[in-house]
Amino acid sequence: MASSGSRFADCPPPPYYAVIFASQRNPGDNGYGAAAQRMIEIAPGMPGYLGVETARVPDGFGITVCYWKDEASIRGWKAQAEHHAAQEQGKAEWYERYELKVAKVERAYGGPQGR
Amino acid sequence: MASSGSRFADCPPPPYYAVIFASQRNPGDNGYGAAAQRMIEIAPGMPGYLGVETARVPDGFGITVCYWKDEASIRGWKAQAEHHAAQEQGKAEWYERYELKVAKVERAYGGPQGR
Repeated sequence: MASSGSRFADCPPPPYYAVIFASQRNPGDNGYGAAAQRMIEIAPGMPGYLGVETARVPDGFGITVCYWKDEASIRGWKAQAEHHAAQEQGKAEWYERYELKVAKVERAYGGPQGR
Repeated sequence: MASSGSRFADCPPPPYYAVIFASQRNPGDNGYGAAAQRMIEIAPGMPGYLGVETARVPDGFGITVCYWKDEASIRGWKAQAEHHAAQEQGKAEWYERYELKVAKVERAYGGPQGR
């Protein structure tokens, strides 16, 4: 389990919030890799952060789901200075298209070894 | 846009529901590829289906988000016969671990060409 355990977010029982971010990357790095790594480093220090799950296929389409305690913590992360700058660069350079959804997690299940 | 447009779900304005399925595949196909393709073929015919987005990285970790009109349509899909069989085979063979969350989408945004 050690190889994959860290890929799953370790969330508490619902309710909590999910920010679902689907995106298609533009070609070229343009600073994306370093910024993405930095976001993953600083997000866990934000109030209300619960975890993140991410998968991106080789052609550049990806889904990242970040979990937060409540709407206030989502607003706090959206306004965080480095993250705000990354959002602007994302719109300008990194993403051909993205779709972001804010959703309230009502139920959660895991298996076979999930819980 | 044609190359990536089909990767994004074309959802109506919220509210609606998202089923977030994060999973780590076991090695080997064991019928997974054909079953996954079949699910993608039949899900759009189910009442309340709104769309699906999926990304799986080469090491077998993936995220699939399926969007539904309401909880009743999620229950309908969960109980669909072929899908039910796939769920059982998934637990038994395909997945080392999975985490499934049901969430109510409250807000949605897209960019730069998202909408």
